Amino acid sequence: MARGIFIAVIGSSRCSEREARMAEEVGAELARRGATLVCGGLSGVMAAACKGARSAGGTTVGILPGNRRQDANPYVDIPIVTTIGEARNVMVVNSAQAVIAIGGEYGTLSEIAFALRDSIPVIGLNTWSLSRSGRLDESIVVAVDARDAVDKALAAIQA
Amino acid sequence: MARGIFIAVIGSSRCSEREARMAEEVGAELARRGATLVCGGLSGVMAAACKGARSAGGTTVGILPGNRRQDANPYVDIPIVTTIGEARNVMVVNSAQAVIAIGGEYGTLSEIAFALRDSIPVIGLNTWSLSRSGRLDESIVVAVDARDAVDKALAAIQA
Amino acid sequence: MARGIFIAVIGSSRCSEREARMAEEVGAELARRGATLVCGGLSGVMAAACKGARSAGGTTVGILPGNRRQDANPYVDIPIVTTIGEARNVMVVNSAQAVIAIGGEYGTLSEIAFALRDSIPVIGLNTWSLSRSGRLDESIVVAVDARDAVDKALAAIQA
Amino acid sequence: MARGIFIAVIGSSRCSEREARMAEEVGAELARRGATLVCGGLSGVMAAACKGARSAGGTTVGILPGNRRQDANPYVDIPIVTTIGEARNVMVVNSAQAVIAIGGEYGTLSEIAFALRDSIPVIGLNTWSLSRSGRLDESIVVAVDARDAVDKALAAIQA
Repeated sequence: MARGIFIAVIGSSRCSEREARMAEEVGAELARRGATLVCGGLSGVMAAACKGARSAGGTTVGILPGNRRQDANPYVDIPIVTTIGEARNVMVVNSAQAVIAIGGEYGTLSEIAFALRDSIPVIGLNTWSLSRSGRLDESIVVAVDARDAVDKALAAIQA
Repeated sequence: MARGIFIAVIGSSRCSEREARMAEEVGAELARRGATLVCGGLSGVMAAACKGARSAGGTTVGILPGNRRQDANPYVDIPIVTTIGEARNVMVVNSAQAVIAIGGEYGTLSEIAFALRDSIPVIGLNTWSLSRSGRLDESIVVAVDARDAVDKALAAIQA
Repeated sequence: MARGIFIAVIGSSRCSEREARMAEEVGAELARRGATLVCGGLSGVMAAACKGARSAGGTTVGILPGNRRQDANPYVDIPIVTTIGEARNVMVVNSAQAVIAIGGEYGTLSEIAFALRDSIPVIGLNTWSLSRSGRLDESIVVAVDARDAVDKALAAIQA
Repeated sequence: MARGIFIAVIGSSRCSEREARMAEEVGAELARRGATLVCGGLSGVMAAACKGARSAGGTTVGILPGNRRQDANPYVDIPIVTTIGEARNVMVVNSAQAVIAIGGEYGTLSEIAFALRDSIPVIGLNTWSLSRSGRLDESIVVAVDARDAVDKALAAIQA
């Protein structure tokens, strides 16, 4: 039986209005395409993406850092209570076949790093860019809007 | 929105025919009662419980130790790829409101220990029993069959 | 270069006077035999064992659950700040070649389970005893006092 | 009792000759200043730093990803066997009061991210540089050579 597609949406638990709008659109578009949304389960970009996914009939997974199910935002269907703090970031990306990063602080950067290390495609919307020894690292695929991000995430999986 | 009930079924990745049958019945009964099944995602008791849950239309979550989604048994709907090995045991029980232990080796014992430490009810079917300083520890609620185990797990949550 | 011997001492962060005395003797004896002490870094049995080890000139490692070095008891030489909570229990035992359990609550039981799972010898002083499907599990080697426990731990490694 | 200073050296398990030389100098200088070296315990930058530290009489801690003590490079005094894979990166930096990054791949980037997230100073020798939404992030303190890196790491702690 086909097990479906899992896409992570990562970003900060505090975000701008504009980031929240993008996250909500990304979540809704993922649901329309039949993908299950994976995220860190908290507020900000995570909550907005879950809200969008649920509004379009999708399923949402929240991989929480703490030890309380109640910390999940109200749009999480499947809360995973890891109890291990920020070390859970490695699981958010490894539970997905592609990752969409929206804005983001250092926690998001750690998720991008783990994803790239494990060859999981990362699509970026107004997020980190990286250079190493003075040379730009172009591993993060830049997207221009929510729909473009979802298109690129799905294309990266099928590739 | 009500978020539903999450029950973990724990036990060995290699198990007897009889344990597999009990696990399958537990999984099916949990699904009939509307609970989502959480487990370690591998074979043996975990696969049998997932098979039972799916046969009754339930949802199954597999919290995997390794870094490959493909390690999940074929009845897992939501595979969580933790990458952290046996340390993921603490998450299997913390992601549930009650735990049903069927048989089990030392990995199962570590899950029972974590559950009892965090005051998550444990129902036992032919599993470990514990004594400390020569006194029996009666924290594990003994069940006589699959249906009894599910009854007791659900009662423990509502209590 | 020989890398020396690492022995874990596990037990509760709250313990009786008698357990603290045993832990201190175990720590001192380990140091006299040239072993490095590994523990969870907190109070109770852990602090008493570290105090004993240091009094005899030994080295102590404390593998802490939280994110603050200051949580270590004052007798820890090498604090490891894991940030992952109780999931760190698996590291306390895997960083040792043998484990001495003194009394203990459910956290200690999870450590015993992980050690036995990974074939790391466990020596018990007034600690948990285990039965499975009604049959006693005799994997924990019973010791009668601190010196006996250290003798048995060192013998188990050399075996 | 003063507990001493812990500095992490991070970088790739495969590195250039030049990076290895820098890492060895950093390790030796840290030991001369009385700091304990923390690292991921493997080869490349980690082994070179440990070699330098030991040559100058220092103590070295290796926080290993796997489940085998033998994976540690031969210059590790205190091997910590975490068993949790790359998720151990969060512990390497949290067990230190400052971090020196030498070159590095995506694993190193995840460590830099976790350190900056938790306000642990990061000193960089020919390592990653970061921009966010098109603006350079200057949180990584750039050093010009091994000695400068150690000076800046120690200054950052005392600040």
